[in-house]
Amino acid sequence: MKKQMISSMKIGDEVETQVVILELNKGLYSSPQRSGDFFLKLLLGDASGKVKAVMWEPPVGEEAIAAGDVVFLRGSVNQYHGLQVVVNELRKLDPTKVNRAFFQPVSERTVEEMVAELKCICEEEIKDKRLTSLLQGFFGDDAFLVKFSLAPAARTIHHNCVGGLLEHTLEVVALCRGLVDLYPGQINRDLLLTGAILHDIGKMEEYRQDSLRFEFSDRGKLVGHISIGKEMLDQKLAELPEFPADLKLELEHMMLTHHGQRDWGSPEVPKTINAFALFHADLVSARMNQFLGVIKNHPEGSGDWTEWDRFLERSIFVGAAKEERDEA
Amino acid sequence: MKKQMISSMKIGDEVETQVVILELNKGLYSSPQRSGDFFLKLLLGDASGKVKAVMWEPPVGEEAIAAGDVVFLRGSVNQYHGLQVVVNELRKLDPTKVNRAFFQPVSERTVEEMVAELKCICEEEIKDKRLTSLLQGFFGDDAFLVKFSLAPAARTIHHNCVGGLLEHTLEVVALCRGLVDLYPGQINRDLLLTGAILHDIGKMEEYRQDSLRFEFSDRGKLVGHISIGKEMLDQKLAELPEFPADLKLELEHMMLTHHGQRDWGSPEVPKTINAFALFHADLVSARMNQFLGVIKNHPEGSGDWTEWDRFLERSIFVGAAKEERDEA
Amino acid sequence: MKKQMISSMKIGDEVETQVVILELNKGLYSSPQRSGDFFLKLLLGDASGKVKAVMWEPPVGEEAIAAGDVVFLRGSVNQYHGLQVVVNELRKLDPTKVNRAFFQPVSERTVEEMVAELKCICEEEIKDKRLTSLLQGFFGDDAFLVKFSLAPAARTIHHNCVGGLLEHTLEVVALCRGLVDLYPGQINRDLLLTGAILHDIGKMEEYRQDSLRFEFSDRGKLVGHISIGKEMLDQKLAELPEFPADLKLELEHMMLTHHGQRDWGSPEVPKTINAFALFHADLVSARMNQFLGVIKNHPEGSGDWTEWDRFLERSIFVGAAKEERDEA
Amino acid sequence: MKKQMISSMKIGDEVETQVVILELNKGLYSSPQRSGDFFLKLLLGDASGKVKAVMWEPPVGEEAIAAGDVVFLRGSVNQYHGLQVVVNELRKLDPTKVNRAFFQPVSERTVEEMVAELKCICEEEIKDKRLTSLLQGFFGDDAFLVKFSLAPAARTIHHNCVGGLLEHTLEVVALCRGLVDLYPGQINRDLLLTGAILHDIGKMEEYRQDSLRFEFSDRGKLVGHISIGKEMLDQKLAELPEFPADLKLELEHMMLTHHGQRDWGSPEVPKTINAFALFHADLVSARMNQFLGVIKNHPEGSGDWTEWDRFLERSIFVGAAKEERDEA
Amino acid sequence: MKKQMISSMKIGDEVETQVVILELNKGLYSSPQRSGDFFLKLLLGDASGKVKAVMWEPPVGEEAIAAGDVVFLRGSVNQYHGLQVVVNELRKLDPTKVNRAFFQPVSERTVEEMVAELKCICEEEIKDKRLTSLLQGFFGDDAFLVKFSLAPAARTIHHNCVGGLLEHTLEVVALCRGLVDLYPGQINRDLLLTGAILHDIGKMEEYRQDSLRFEFSDRGKLVGHISIGKEMLDQKLAELPEFPADLKLELEHMMLTHHGQRDWGSPEVPKTINAFALFHADLVSARMNQFLGVIKNHPEGSGDWTEWDRFLERSIFVGAAKEERDEA
Amino acid sequence: MKKQMISSMKIGDEVETQVVILELNKGLYSSPQRSGDFFLKLLLGDASGKVKAVMWEPPVGEEAIAAGDVVFLRGSVNQYHGLQVVVNELRKLDPTKVNRAFFQPVSERTVEEMVAELKCICEEEIKDKRLTSLLQGFFGDDAFLVKFSLAPAARTIHHNCVGGLLEHTLEVVALCRGLVDLYPGQINRDLLLTGAILHDIGKMEEYRQDSLRFEFSDRGKLVGHISIGKEMLDQKLAELPEFPADLKLELEHMMLTHHGQRDWGSPEVPKTINAFALFHADLVSARMNQFLGVIKNHPEGSGDWTEWDRFLERSIFVGAAKEERDEA
Repeated sequence: MKKQMISSMKIGDEVETQVVILELNKGLYSSPQRSGDFFLKLLLGDASGKVKAVMWEPPVGEEAIAAGDVVFLRGSVNQYHGLQVVVNELRKLDPTKVNRAFFQPVSERTVEEMVAELKCICEEEIKDKRLTSLLQGFFGDDAFLVKFSLAPAARTIHHNCVGGLLEHTLEVVALCRGLVDLYPGQINRDLLLTGAILHDIGKMEEYRQDSLRFEFSDRGKLVGHISIGKEMLDQKLAELPEFPADLKLELEHMMLTHHGQRDWGSPEVPKTINAFALFHADLVSARMNQFLGVIKNHPEGSGDWTEWDRFLERSIFVGAAKEERDEA
Repeated sequence: MKKQMISSMKIGDEVETQVVILELNKGLYSSPQRSGDFFLKLLLGDASGKVKAVMWEPPVGEEAIAAGDVVFLRGSVNQYHGLQVVVNELRKLDPTKVNRAFFQPVSERTVEEMVAELKCICEEEIKDKRLTSLLQGFFGDDAFLVKFSLAPAARTIHHNCVGGLLEHTLEVVALCRGLVDLYPGQINRDLLLTGAILHDIGKMEEYRQDSLRFEFSDRGKLVGHISIGKEMLDQKLAELPEFPADLKLELEHMMLTHHGQRDWGSPEVPKTINAFALFHADLVSARMNQFLGVIKNHPEGSGDWTEWDRFLERSIFVGAAKEERDEA
Repeated sequence: MKKQMISSMKIGDEVETQVVILELNKGLYSSPQRSGDFFLKLLLGDASGKVKAVMWEPPVGEEAIAAGDVVFLRGSVNQYHGLQVVVNELRKLDPTKVNRAFFQPVSERTVEEMVAELKCICEEEIKDKRLTSLLQGFFGDDAFLVKFSLAPAARTIHHNCVGGLLEHTLEVVALCRGLVDLYPGQINRDLLLTGAILHDIGKMEEYRQDSLRFEFSDRGKLVGHISIGKEMLDQKLAELPEFPADLKLELEHMMLTHHGQRDWGSPEVPKTINAFALFHADLVSARMNQFLGVIKNHPEGSGDWTEWDRFLERSIFVGAAKEERDEA
Repeated sequence: MKKQMISSMKIGDEVETQVVILELNKGLYSSPQRSGDFFLKLLLGDASGKVKAVMWEPPVGEEAIAAGDVVFLRGSVNQYHGLQVVVNELRKLDPTKVNRAFFQPVSERTVEEMVAELKCICEEEIKDKRLTSLLQGFFGDDAFLVKFSLAPAARTIHHNCVGGLLEHTLEVVALCRGLVDLYPGQINRDLLLTGAILHDIGKMEEYRQDSLRFEFSDRGKLVGHISIGKEMLDQKLAELPEFPADLKLELEHMMLTHHGQRDWGSPEVPKTINAFALFHADLVSARMNQFLGVIKNHPEGSGDWTEWDRFLERSIFVGAAKEERDEA
Repeated sequence: MKKQMISSMKIGDEVETQVVILELNKGLYSSPQRSGDFFLKLLLGDASGKVKAVMWEPPVGEEAIAAGDVVFLRGSVNQYHGLQVVVNELRKLDPTKVNRAFFQPVSERTVEEMVAELKCICEEEIKDKRLTSLLQGFFGDDAFLVKFSLAPAARTIHHNCVGGLLEHTLEVVALCRGLVDLYPGQINRDLLLTGAILHDIGKMEEYRQDSLRFEFSDRGKLVGHISIGKEMLDQKLAELPEFPADLKLELEHMMLTHHGQRDWGSPEVPKTINAFALFHADLVSARMNQFLGVIKNHPEGSGDWTEWDRFLERSIFVGAAKEERDEA
Repeated sequence: MKKQMISSMKIGDEVETQVVILELNKGLYSSPQRSGDFFLKLLLGDASGKVKAVMWEPPVGEEAIAAGDVVFLRGSVNQYHGLQVVVNELRKLDPTKVNRAFFQPVSERTVEEMVAELKCICEEEIKDKRLTSLLQGFFGDDAFLVKFSLAPAARTIHHNCVGGLLEHTLEVVALCRGLVDLYPGQINRDLLLTGAILHDIGKMEEYRQDSLRFEFSDRGKLVGHISIGKEMLDQKLAELPEFPADLKLELEHMMLTHHGQRDWGSPEVPKTINAFALFHADLVSARMNQFLGVIKNHPEGSGDWTEWDRFLERSIFVGAAKEERDEA
């Protein structure tokens, strides 16, 4: 089925494409004669963006359409507070048969490139054979690798895209590498990198893989990625009877404490230098991306200050000082 | 070896007994002639209480004695700000060979009685066969049962005695039973009682079983009893392939959330009525015991107010209104 | 006057009944010809539930109808996002003459049954004559008893219904009884139960008895139920010159501290075991009901998770593990 | 009995005087020959200051002396880390027979002067007859006036001296007067001044009148001065049946809310302009005196910075910029 | 151009006047025939108040009108939920050419009167020549004086009007004067008054002088008035080489700490009595005005309680006790 | 004058050297015959470590010795709870004439090496001529460079040594470089590095350069390094009239916000990506060093857990998993 991306729509287009329903509300006709009748106000999305839509005469008696559905859409584009699609036809599609890449934002780097980089770290950069065995236990499993590659690192806030977990993981690895270099001889390099690679594997189960909107799974909400990740680690280590207990203890500690504080969701605080370093690398990656994400969502030409961001509790100044290099 | 309990010592006694060294400090002789010489100031303990001691001429060249050691003691009792033992001889004992009951406080009820009550709940009160199998998996194992019976429920604060975990567990079960009765039809009784029984099993590994002072184990400090408990549950459930996933999920959730808030050490908050009920039962048992413990430690005849308790952040009024019942 | 309960309305009904106006908003006709004209959008309620309504041609020149009014309603039921009443006539009623039971939610147990239980506790369970005299001073007064029986225990959050104060009080008594049993000899049973019965009497003045929506009284907002309750206790004790000062002191302390913490509205923290026990019983009753209330308001068939509750700061999982008992 | 004030003692003096024992500790003789013997290390106080003392041979078999006792003292003054009294005789006195002015710090202004000022405000400045009747009900009672005049406004922190409550009350009145002038027509002057005069009357019962160290009474700790004050107000108003309910409500609200926030001990927050003004006047008087008290306790010549004050959480800079006025 | 103040508009008026656009939203016509068309819903303001407006046929193709614009308005007044202007014409004006006094709320006292009072304090009340020179350095500069006189003291919350900074400054001076009188000899009077006069000068740069809505400047948001004020002080002092370093240090400290706490925006806490007094005077002025502002905005006849104020986190009771003075 | 470092002292040594007095207390002779006599208990320090000392017969009538003094010491080393110097002679030295390197801890890297690295960054790595001019303005001044090189970065907690400011600055630069690489095109590299170099220059004035114990200066305590730093920047920029206002604004913002939160001492929060990046780099450097410092101070062979650190609120586990690399 053909796909026209939302970002390419312009006034006057007749469109036939697929979109995901992000929001759906009924609007009341205000005239008494039509009392009880309603129209649909919609927000439609795909990986390229969002667009408003209105459907004046919703179909009656058919299977109800709801937020989260993927639909076939036929209509025309006009303008009302920006673009708006006037919908003529709306038909539910089987979500397992659509091309997910049409609907979910993807990371800036390609998954292939990032997987290659991750494998290289696991196989070449880390020297401790006990740890490479463990990593091989995870990433040598293709099904695991695919799931890992598709997962986001968060629902909102940061790295909330397909490949986001991979992207965040590589950033944390890079930041950890920087810390090892800065404090030579103080940190167990191989252990820290391994912790960086594995710290968020619980995220794979925290979000529903079938949801195009990265919704939390029940298990994600009831157990959480930190405890899920520890469980995944324990199961894998149970297959590696040679793995030493002290190394297991440190890895478990790193996984449990990577949020750094109890009120940020870690049941314990970091008590080893490796866990402490991992926490800071994770914090910096998450926070920098959160900040850059607000900047990225600020439309060109809409002033020097972004909208108030309720998570960062501030507006951001983007009217930055101009760079001016000497060129002579 | 004979044991005279500290609580039975009186002025003038010549004592030969065993004690654990709770504190040990060196005192400096102030006269210039003895400059550099020192004596020992000690705090000795056993399950019946504590007593100060002084040793004017510590042995030289022998194996050093340190806090935590169990020792053979010979000396005489005199008075100095209350009782004080003047020590003549002090000799280290093998801690694995002493009778632990001499040194550790024990719960008020006997372990046997409490184990019987617990088994009765597991086998007769809980009807859901899936849950009784799980409980049998734990408590049917004698080694597990012994360890469980000897563990304290906390290092300080509440139920910090041999059998304390058992005592606290039974209190939580009783409180949960009360909640089931108060809100009939709203709570899954068997699930709640099972959660109550298992919620603190991680405590068995949180404290060093070999320590007479209930010290934390490395794993206790790095992983914590909540995550250890979940790991023990997961391992046991792995042996029960029939156990349904939804029940596992609820039990895991109950175990993880029983501290009720993130800043109290639970990585998630209770999101089911069963987890919410368990959290409150645990809270009430812990807090009531903490409060009653402060009262219990307040010496008779030392006024209407206890010392300031830094955990409860208050002094407690024990000059309570006298009860006066009609007798006619 | 006839009363058709909202919960029994169905599409096509012609209704003549009484309801209370919960919300009232004016809707603007959007067509320029009717510029300035408006219709009414209403939310109507009674003890059985709520329903939306619309009145296209509001009466002109009559006494204005406002939120909080009890009205006679004539109209027909159709459907628009669920049921909606199209109103033909709306007429204000004298609120003092309506049957309050039509409009206010009531507790699950009948008031009569709960009063009987309360009297039994006061007269038979509590043995200390000084305390029974005090209780008789309150509950022996029929006017007091009626007011107490009709009061809610809270405006929102928990036990917010006619009889709610009575229901909450009996729950707190039951929980206190459980604590007395769990810690025998540590708690003054009669004193604790008396405190449990009286702890919230200030609530009778905190809410306006004439308000069908349990609004706060001025005195409730400016003084608060804790201080009002202490004042009521002081006044009653002034009539009992024999009542011992130490018992008065404990009861006052229990009343003032039953919220447990300063930032929860208690001017002091509990400093006696009786006050500490009462605080926990009150907490557990309030919190369990709050949680169960969110579950109760979750419509059947609307998924495994309730709406976000801003007081509990969570959604609740209601897709609980199915109970499965052995039937052989 | 003669009284030599501590501030007048100098090295070499033979002293016979009365003091209060502020601290008493036993010191251990370190030589083995005197093992078990001890001497007394004391801190002695009177209204003029404090001095250390040592008693090498404490009396045996006599009634024990404890902190808080008033004693007759005979000894000689020498120097050891500043002055130190070597005590030869120490004899307990009947605390009800000593001259309290010897032992308790007193406010800077005389009680007589402050009482006169207060009476003038009650009788001449306040015009509303309903309020002057109320004030007359309190201050027209000589026993009340004496107790009020002797009470401190706090145990430590601020105005912790005989007459301190009076001094603080007059400061709050003065600050309130300033606010009335600043916001003319916005504040009910008579009501605010009455609230200022009465806001802390509960302090009279919060501290033990018999204690030379301003110790809390049981009632002070269990009920607190805010609720005690409201109770005193209610009792007095019960004698004034003409007093209007709305005025009573405002006064009660002002008394309950004068600490301004729940976590500072007020069960409600100020919700009228009069209560809000009173809270700020009370805050400023208390905080300014607390700050000035730390400065006052900083010894001359001991540097530009005071000791760390744990209540204010800071050291204070007293090396202030020198004033330099033009004199020409 | 003529100006009719909003507060004088009444139903039926034909108006031609100038207003500022406070809010502007597009409304959607609901009928399918007009799909895509919209009307404007406006909130208009001037110094006398606010009024709603609607424009059914917005001009097409002209320069867009936006919130913040000053416009010429032609229309007629009717009623829809209170007054509403039906707009016929709307034309943007040059904001630099309008009379600002039409649009911005002004302080109750006139700027002239307040400037005169301020000058009198600077020149006559303060005696220390070093400080009068400094003040003369600022207020002797007419451009500075004009800017100071027009600035608000806050964007919302308190003194948010032309002349507000001046009004707040004089209040703080008055409160400081009261503190000097209350604690004679403890405070450096001239230094405190100078600090009071200068403490908020940074506000002149914190708000955009050109904005009719007192918007923050970039520098206000990125540097803040506390640090801007210190910079202004430093620059001025650089012109006074005789000014002593210790006095400069105290003044800088007062300016930096006048918010009293780090989480209220002061990088240090007050550590001198002068800084501590200034902080409290500033606090009381700001908070009293904030509270009085909520009362002032409460419409006559709309009940005894104001709307919930989210900054003060309370509703305010304005049904105050009636004053009743003796008239005989 | 000869210097024997404390770390090289051993039992039996007769020592003549220079030390700084870290603590000085008087000890009381307990025998009545020597009542009033005292001896000195000392803690002595130099750059290599600390040692206890005792002086049985302190000199009489000489200039008093106090904590902070540098002294000439003669005595002999014996053992009492570890090493102890018995002092025979103690004589005050002129602190301006001693070799500071004897007494203050120094950074691990040499100052020369670090200065060279810093200069290289300023001159070669940063390309923007406007920024290099600014940096040259600071570091081209030799007096500035010397002061900068000797300053610590903190009094306790982290980088508290001569050269500490330099070391911390270079770490922050390195971490910023890592962030630029990780988010290419998002950060103004030259601006960020300049901010990193200058962010803590206020520290040069925050500590007293003459104090061997890195004490705070009055200005450090009253103004703080953040505001001092901004003042230094403003003064330097005043000499560079070409420097653009927008660049100045960003740099000021970076300096003011580098503590990231108000309650951590920044008057504003970071609102540009450059300020946000700088805050995180500063945080990571400070926190990692704080953690590593606790590990470094943990004596070899004293167990797997460090002492409780009250700043980090934890003990640290140093019994880390052993590294084990494959060697075949």
